[in-house]
Amino acid sequence: MDRTRLEAFSDGVFAVAITLLALNLTVEGPGPGHPKLTDQLGSHWPAFVAYLISFFTIGIIWVNHHALLRSVKAVDRTLLFLNLVLLLFVVLIPFSTATAAEYLSKDNWDARVAMALFAGVFVGMSVGFGGIFEWTLHSESVLQPVPPERRWAARIRFVGGAAVYVVAVVIALFSAYAAFALMGLVAVYYIFERTPAASKSSEDEEPGG
Amino acid sequence: MDRTRLEAFSDGVFAVAITLLALNLTVEGPGPGHPKLTDQLGSHWPAFVAYLISFFTIGIIWVNHHALLRSVKAVDRTLLFLNLVLLLFVVLIPFSTATAAEYLSKDNWDARVAMALFAGVFVGMSVGFGGIFEWTLHSESVLQPVPPERRWAARIRFVGGAAVYVVAVVIALFSAYAAFALMGLVAVYYIFERTPAASKSSEDEEPGG
Amino acid sequence: MDRTRLEAFSDGVFAVAITLLALNLTVEGPGPGHPKLTDQLGSHWPAFVAYLISFFTIGIIWVNHHALLRSVKAVDRTLLFLNLVLLLFVVLIPFSTATAAEYLSKDNWDARVAMALFAGVFVGMSVGFGGIFEWTLHSESVLQPVPPERRWAARIRFVGGAAVYVVAVVIALFSAYAAFALMGLVAVYYIFERTPAASKSSEDEEPGG
Amino acid sequence: MDRTRLEAFSDGVFAVAITLLALNLTVEGPGPGHPKLTDQLGSHWPAFVAYLISFFTIGIIWVNHHALLRSVKAVDRTLLFLNLVLLLFVVLIPFSTATAAEYLSKDNWDARVAMALFAGVFVGMSVGFGGIFEWTLHSESVLQPVPPERRWAARIRFVGGAAVYVVAVVIALFSAYAAFALMGLVAVYYIFERTPAASKSSEDEEPGG
Repeated sequence: MDRTRLEAFSDGVFAVAITLLALNLTVEGPGPGHPKLTDQLGSHWPAFVAYLISFFTIGIIWVNHHALLRSVKAVDRTLLFLNLVLLLFVVLIPFSTATAAEYLSKDNWDARVAMALFAGVFVGMSVGFGGIFEWTLHSESVLQPVPPERRWAARIRFVGGAAVYVVAVVIALFSAYAAFALMGLVAVYYIFERTPAASKSSEDEEPGG
Repeated sequence: MDRTRLEAFSDGVFAVAITLLALNLTVEGPGPGHPKLTDQLGSHWPAFVAYLISFFTIGIIWVNHHALLRSVKAVDRTLLFLNLVLLLFVVLIPFSTATAAEYLSKDNWDARVAMALFAGVFVGMSVGFGGIFEWTLHSESVLQPVPPERRWAARIRFVGGAAVYVVAVVIALFSAYAAFALMGLVAVYYIFERTPAASKSSEDEEPGG
Repeated sequence: MDRTRLEAFSDGVFAVAITLLALNLTVEGPGPGHPKLTDQLGSHWPAFVAYLISFFTIGIIWVNHHALLRSVKAVDRTLLFLNLVLLLFVVLIPFSTATAAEYLSKDNWDARVAMALFAGVFVGMSVGFGGIFEWTLHSESVLQPVPPERRWAARIRFVGGAAVYVVAVVIALFSAYAAFALMGLVAVYYIFERTPAASKSSEDEEPGG
Repeated sequence: MDRTRLEAFSDGVFAVAITLLALNLTVEGPGPGHPKLTDQLGSHWPAFVAYLISFFTIGIIWVNHHALLRSVKAVDRTLLFLNLVLLLFVVLIPFSTATAAEYLSKDNWDARVAMALFAGVFVGMSVGFGGIFEWTLHSESVLQPVPPERRWAARIRFVGGAAVYVVAVVIALFSAYAAFALMGLVAVYYIFERTPAASKSSEDEEPGG
């Protein structure tokens, strides 16, 4: 299988998952006993924040996914499987985001479980992505793998990314809001700082860069 | 990252968002206490009008998006971020359209908030699109940017587009229906008149144009 | 705009619309007062038949869409608009299919309105498709338009297709089931018989055909 | 029609169907009378297992679909029809998965019917896929069909795959859980073992393979 169709399928899944996120943003229509729209929008703030976090996290993973795969010549069954594992968790993001948003109105045990689930899906996604990264280091069908002297630096960053989400899972069990804040910070951080592989690729591309 | 995959991902998001619009068009099934279907279809007219406005607005933004990106040689992280901001608001359109349609049965405060939200998402989309436009003016990786003498004319049109949606937000706070009518007019206007960049591109293409 | 991105966007809309059709196929879960699953599946037969009709109709329109566009060199704003009109109705199909399926449990006035809506969306789709067909006859950017001596034959078939759906709208007002049967027959007919443009193209392609 | 657009459309349908699977994973929000989140997640285990089975089954079918089509030069109407039949069942998977997950809380007759439906949709998918496989053996527009001496081996594996799902339908009528376990085993098996056509293709691709 050539890379193009793997990318096309993955892009489709990323695009659908990122768009389904907004299905969680619903309000009750007008009617007796229903709260006013401004009150609903106000009390739904966790849904909007969770939407932003998940939207940018999927967006960044999509960028990094492309950066990782662009020097892959041929796709073998191991990469196909690792890519499916990554997508398995990407597809779960709308569900975990919706659950977190629904339960975050107060910081009780259920909210903490929901937030641990939210962070846990991101852990799974990071593990899937890290697996693809390791594959690119060892496969013979990668044109320009990350050079050996930069691999540990890259690994530390990947493991660091996954580790922050693991920390968020643990924190969630004590404070749903603290974990939520941490995950928001991670999303903001990633918007301004990409993986080494991605940065390297874009430097190559930028004319005169 | 090359342009092709950015376009493929964006096209996917545009296509899913435009198709999810129709999920808002639902009627209650037959049953005791449910209104007759003709009554439901009649009283749901705001949903159908909002569907038309959002459908053509997303369609036009998709056309303009392609026209803007077609002379981009290489994609840097700034463009990726601006594109994500644009898509962030595109993905919100089914939600804001559904909310506006649900609340527009009478012109009360909730309906005005809903309509301000509807127009506000279009403001965000315009800002994201304007950001991409400014990027194409200054990036070195754009093959044929809009020439300097035409930039202010183009900017005025973009700012004008965003300004109309800002006006719609303000009007919405006084009359939901007036804002709704204004947004319908803007959609009709854009169907018959595209951005300078788009017009220029299609002139180049049309044989004998 | 080149043809490729128009096709990619349209394919995305076709693919999402055809997959959303199955969202209408839902059953109530187990619980007190809920009918048994076999009873539900039995009484939902209109939903399954409507799914089949809409699935194959979208599939056929997708095939014909490609056959029509494959000789288009450049896309102008008229074609973009006509294509959006076609997609506007394609996106409505999951809604009209769901409404028809819900109301078809008995042949009362509401069921007839629902069936007229179902057929009416197909009329709109046929008109949008016919518009694109006429555009290909007159545009200078079409490489191999249908030759003049075959145009009327092709038009008659297109108009015939739209006319059958108009007839289905009229019949629906008298008998929902009769209109449903007619639309099923049309779908079966189209599976085995494609438009002249499509047949011509595939003849060209088939080695030794 | 060339192969590219058939693949793009099919990839879109696969991507949307695989992502819609997660729409079935919903929990009730916090509220009086609603069970605790941990209890809900625990009692929803069939939904998570069914998600895993369907996710990997669609993923594997997508891989095999590409492997089958990659040596197809031109697409004729028979292949288009067979591909639509395959997609017809792929699109049904989110529905059958949701139904199975909802009813599997106890092993009564309804759960058995739901599980038979779940397995039955996979039978349909296998038949559609087998039809495409047979087409590639006989079509003149396939560049490198499976050589005659390997056809029966390949057929036996395909028929075997479909047969296991037929067996699952039969078992489901006696024990929903036994059929569920069988389908899980099949998914695990396919993750580690692909069709001959697919294996052959990837061997060709792997450098030094």
